[in-house]
Order: sequence, then structure tokens, then C-alpha cells
Amino acid sequence: MYFSVFLKDKLMACVVQKFGGTSVADPNRIKNVATKVKKEYDRGNQVVVVVSAMSGVTNQLVQYCKDIDENYNLQEYDTVVSTGEQVTIGLLAMALQSIGVPSRSFTGWQIPLLTDQAASKARIHTIETEKLRECLDNGIVPVVAGFQGIDENGRITTLGRGGSDTSAVAVAAALKADRCDIYTDVDGVYTTDPRLVKNARRLDQVTYEEMLEMASLGAKVLQTRSVELAMKYQVNLRVLSSFEENPIGTIICDEESIVEKEVISGITYSRDESKITLVAVKDEPGISACVFDLLAEANICVDMIIQTESVNRKSTDITFTVPESDLNGALSVLAKHKEEIGYTDIISDSNCVKVSLIGVGMRTHTGIARKMFRALSDKGINVQTISTSEIKISVLIADEYAELAVRALHAAFELDVKQV
Amino acid sequence: MYFSVFLKDKLMACVVQKFGGTSVADPNRIKNVATKVKKEYDRGNQVVVVVSAMSGVTNQLVQYCKDIDENYNLQEYDTVVSTGEQVTIGLLAMALQSIGVPSRSFTGWQIPLLTDQAASKARIHTIETEKLRECLDNGIVPVVAGFQGIDENGRITTLGRGGSDTSAVAVAAALKADRCDIYTDVDGVYTTDPRLVKNARRLDQVTYEEMLEMASLGAKVLQTRSVELAMKYQVNLRVLSSFEENPIGTIICDEESIVEKEVISGITYSRDESKITLVAVKDEPGISACVFDLLAEANICVDMIIQTESVNRKSTDITFTVPESDLNGALSVLAKHKEEIGYTDIISDSNCVKVSLIGVGMRTHTGIARKMFRALSDKGINVQTISTSEIKISVLIADEYAELAVRALHAAFELDVKQV
Repeated sequence: MYFSVFLKDKLMACVVQKFGGTSVADPNRIKNVATKVKKEYDRGNQVVVVVSAMSGVTNQLVQYCKDIDENYNLQEYDTVVSTGEQVTIGLLAMALQSIGVPSRSFTGWQIPLLTDQAASKARIHTIETEKLRECLDNGIVPVVAGFQGIDENGRITTLGRGGSDTSAVAVAAALKADRCDIYTDVDGVYTTDPRLVKNARRLDQVTYEEMLEMASLGAKVLQTRSVELAMKYQVNLRVLSSFEENPIGTIICDEESIVEKEVISGITYSRDESKITLVAVKDEPGISACVFDLLAEANICVDMIIQTESVNRKSTDITFTVPESDLNGALSVLAKHKEEIGYTDIISDSNCVKVSLIGVGMRTHTGIARKMFRALSDKGINVQTISTSEIKISVLIADEYAELAVRALHAAFELDVKQV
Repeated sequence: MYFSVFLKDKLMACVVQKFGGTSVADPNRIKNVATKVKKEYDRGNQVVVVVSAMSGVTNQLVQYCKDIDENYNLQEYDTVVSTGEQVTIGLLAMALQSIGVPSRSFTGWQIPLLTDQAASKARIHTIETEKLRECLDNGIVPVVAGFQGIDENGRITTLGRGGSDTSAVAVAAALKADRCDIYTDVDGVYTTDPRLVKNARRLDQVTYEEMLEMASLGAKVLQTRSVELAMKYQVNLRVLSSFEENPIGTIICDEESIVEKEVISGITYSRDESKITLVAVKDEPGISACVFDLLAEANICVDMIIQTESVNRKSTDITFTVPESDLNGALSVLAKHKEEIGYTDIISDSNCVKVSLIGVGMRTHTGIARKMFRALSDKGINVQTISTSEIKISVLIADEYAELAVRALHAAFELDVKQV
């Protein structure tokens, strides 16, 4: 008795596997996913599976909602769109049973996975593990619907687009799982977009912080929230391809767990940037604060900010970037408060792209910025704005130079070869 | 205060409206349903809506299950197919809100509607009315998912095909609603199939018992279980068209509530009949019992039975009908026990049809059977088997005479004109 408990504790790993929409796009692919789950199960591991809706289904459901009413009720929206994942869990549990793997499905409310009441973008409060544990202890594979939960009033909630990654990490955290494998249609995290740079390299490992910067700066491999959660609860995350036989993927983990750290791990770019310049703002204390207060009140997220001092010290230009979708909103807020801010002109520009260099090695290595600017200027690329953090440098450049800049930086930092 | 309660009790009716799959087939039809609900709501009535899945959706989901595994797990099947209704409730609640009718959706588990554990064909145990009442008392229209419930283990269950009618009647019974209106794609219950008989007449009223016979004898307007339930709890049921502006429909109610009873209310026919004859069975006590015991053990439902006495009193022929889908099963059971039963030959025939005459008036009127057989023989139609109940006479005839027989009977009993 004691021996078997000991064995279980020692040898059995608890693994959460998450499969995205393209991996479960149709019954055949769902059967394929079942064989991957069986492989892990047959190793003697405890496996929990988290799935998305079959690809295309969520879009169809959202379209139905829009057809009913463009300003649809968000609680009813959640009721409608959460069905996509519910279909997948039932089908995958069936598929597992049919190949001899005991399994049962769990909707968000069956677990329950409790969230706040923010319909369509709910945040997870707690995950009850009792029923999942009971399954695992009995050799049953629970198949959990991603993206969904239940609020304290018993209404169905969803976590927002890409929320299934977050569900998977949260379940892994709640179960203190040894690993959370995110199966997707790419085979890992790359040094940069492989469609842009042919010799982009798959990273074996990347830190949570780097991944967070990458996710928020344009790499679409993982949802930002899922990485935040993984970092908070120290969940060993892996991104790997569901279409390969023996995928390696990329491990996302703590900096301390990576023995051979690379200086620069990746280059991202984002076209979702618009630049606004307020010309000849009075150079008085509190004017910048006023501008950014107004934008914050309008829920507009300001990213890069640059302020140039005027020669005569009487007026100044303020330049900043906002997401392209917020450009019109920002312009109308600023126009409404022209008197108050006291600028002479507004210039806006959507033809710009943000290119970022990311790497925890920046903390300990010098000369990164210099090397970056040199590489860009060698190609005749003008840097409009710069912003930095401890582990990233972002520059705003003209849209047309995006590919050139990414390739130049990839080459300059020799990212095609592992740098330690 | 007392006055308002008094008013509410006196003037406000509680109405359950059920809309089937074709009525909610797409977002536009769902909006159309919303206007029908609003009409009832604007009369000052308390309205509960029960809906099916958008037509085609359930079939698609069932197909997915079959694609995964022909012998799919029934609990997972319920998890998958119950999503169809969940989509409709969300969309209809949205549509109601968008035209100013406060509304919220309820899945089976949110009510909760408790069932037994018989996955894919569960039976309703209880329906909690607290949340529904709370909505109604606050002027909110609850939109309830038909066809589904939850068992005591928290698993989703479904009630079997056509179960949404049953859900609607059960909700009406639980709320002691004044009326349960079943909106469908036909405008009521007809004296016979209007596709067969041009002057078939819509009935204004029909008794529960007649409707039960009609439903089980081939008329597909309502599910048998829903009629049984309505009869048990005395729910005022109405079948009406969701595609007409001011539909009248057919009321299904207690015999006592119908002032002017018709003698014959309808003629049904069913092609789902196969006839089996066991030739020269030993004419000994217990042989028939043996035959029907064997078939019952194999879950085969025997309908009409006829036994002809032999001339020499040593052997007899036994003829009976089974549903067409059970014919092969029945034949193999009988072949396996040939020795035991002791017949010389089996003859089977799928080319037969059961035509039934239904009417509570049979209880008090004589000469119905004579008139029926006369009408058939006048057309040269040979009656193979007869079965009767208090309110119906069924005959088995050759398939090719089906239309002729139905038309002849409809004319003979002058069902195109109301008979009192």
C-alpha cells in the first residue's frame, strides 16, 4: 500500500495537454488528438486535456450573435459561444474511450471553474480540483472545455479570445501539474516570424518574461494572460506542434531553470501602431499629464511616448503611439480638448511599425542598443521613437521598412545560431 | 399592495410558448419568434419560452458523434447534442432584449430540470421553479433550452428526439401555466395527412386520448410523451403555426372541456409495419405465450395479433406485426427457437400499412366498425388484421392501398365537415 503510493508520487507525472482549434478542426483530427493523449497516458502519466472549439465554430457563433443584434447582450453571447468547446470535449472524450482510454468531459460549470462576472472577458477566480483529482486517481482522463467558466450567479462566462490557453495554465496551476503542453499549429517559439526571415530559429527555451514581451509585442503563439499566469504560478509551459509525430517545441520557464541563457531571444514586430504628434504644446508642467489622463479616461492605451523640448522653451511637441483601432477615438478626444491642452496642430500617422528586440541577456550585456541602432542605420532606416524595458528595446519605424529591419536585426545579432 | 396582487392573480395569464427547429432555423427566424413572444408579453401575460435547436444543427452534431465512433458514449453524446438548444436560447434572449423585452436564457442545468440518468432518453424527475418564478415576477421572459436536463451526478442529459415538446409541457405543468402553445411548421392537428387528402380539415379541438392515439399511430405533430404528460397534469396544450400572423391552431384538452365532441376526429396511417405469420404452430396451451415472451425478451414490440383456429384443431397460424426496424431481429429470434415453438414455416411481409380511425365518439356511437369495413370493401381493399381500443380501430392492409383507404374513410365519415 505505502509502496504503491510512493511509486505513484515518484514516477507518475501530472500533465495538462491543451489542443487549439486547428488541432480539433474535425472528427478525424479529434481522433488524432486522442492518440496523442493516449501516448502520454500510456506512459503512466496522469493527463488532463483542455480543448478549444473546432476551428471556425466560434466565428460562426459570433456571427449569429451579430446577426441578431450588433449590440448583443454579453451574458447571452457567453451562453452561445461557450457551446463550441462543449462540443469538442464530448467528441474527444468519446474518441478516447473508443481507443481504450477512460475519459469524461467537463464543462466550465461542471468543474467548476469560477470566474468574475465580466461577461466575454471574465477572469478566473478559483478552480475546484476535487472532481478532476477524483478522475485522475481513478485513471480517467478529464477533458476540460477551455475558454469558459461560471460566475457566482451560475451564469456561463467566457475568458475572451484565446482564453483556452489561460484555462489550460490555470488548470495546471490548480493541479500543481508537472507540465502544461500547449499543442498548436506552429512547432514552437521562433527567434522571429519565419514567414519573414527564412533562417529564423526555433528556441528550445525562453523565459516567462521574454515570452510575455513577445506575446504583447506581436508574436501570436500564446495569449499574454496565459503567460502571466504561468509565471505567477511557476507552471512549466511548453508550446509544440500537434501535427508532428515527436514534437520538441519550446519550453517557457523561469530564468533560473535555463542553464545556457541566450543574450537576445527574439525579434517581434507589430503593425498595430499609430503615431500621434501634438504640435507646439505649451511647455508647462501638467500638460502631458492632462493629455494622458484624457486618453486613459477614454480607455485608450498609450504605448511609446516622446517629448521634444523646444528651442525657445515656450512650446514642445508630444509624440506617442496608440493601437490602430484606437486612433480615431484618440483624435476625437484630443480635438474636443484642444483649448485645454493648447496645441496648434495634430499630426497622425498609421504607416508605422514597432520592431522590438527581446532578451533577458540585456540585463547583463552592454552595447545591445548601440548594435541595434547601427544595424538599422546601416540600412538607412530612420528610428522615429524608442522605448525600452529591462529586457527589450522597441523602435518605431516607417511601415515599409518592417521586413528589412527585422531581417537586418536577425542577421546582426546572428539569431540563426544559438548564442550563449 | 393587496390590490395589485389581486389584479395580477386575476388578469395575468402564465403562458409557455414552445418553438421548434424550423421556427428558429436562422437568426432572422429567431427575430420573428421574438416578435411573437413580445406580442404575448405585451398583453400583460407572464411568458416562458422553450426552444429547440436551429433545424439541422442536431443532425450535424449527431453526425460528428458517429464520425468519432458508431458506438459512442451516450453521456458524451448528451454533452454534445445539448449545445444545439443552448445556442438558440442565447440568441433568442438577445433578440428579445433588442426589441425591449427583458429576457434571460436558461440551460437545463441552470433551472435545474432534474432527470434520471438514462443518457439520450432521460425522463424528467422534477423542475425547480424558483428561478423561473423570480424572472416572471420581475417581468423577465425566461428562455429555456428544451430537450435537456441534468442528472443527480451533474451530468447533462437529453430527453430523446422531439424532447423539446416534453420540456415545454413539463415546464407548463411545473408552473401551473394557463396554456402551453406549441409553435411548429404545421397550423394544427388535421383529420388526416393533408398531403394525402386535399380536403383534410384542421380540428379546433381534440382530446388528450385522441391525440395520444394519433401521435403513436403516425401523426408527427407532437411527441407522444408530451401528450401523456399534458394529460397527466391537465396542461392546456395548443398546436399552432409559427409562420402565420394570427394562428388559431388546435387545442388539445380534456374530453370534458370539449362541448361539441366529434364522433371521429382523425384517420392516421403508418407504413412502419411488418407482418409475420408462423404457419402450423401446434395448437397447444402456452405456445402463443412462448412466442411473445421470446419477442419481449428481445425488446421487440408486437402490435397487432391474430390467431386462426385450425380445422383439425391440431395446428394453428399465428400472425402479428412488429415495427419494420425490428423485423430482422424478430425473424432471427423465431428461427433460433423453431423447435421450441414448433411451427412449419415463417412468412413475413413488409408491404403493409396500418390505417387507423380515431375518435372518442366510438365509446357512445355504434356502427363505426361496420361503416369502416364497408367503405374499405367497397373499394376492394382486403383487411388482413384488425385491432381495436376504446377510441380507435386499426386495420392492416396492403401497402399499395394506403392512400385509397385513407381517402375512402375520410369521405365515408365526411371528415371534411365538422360532425357533432
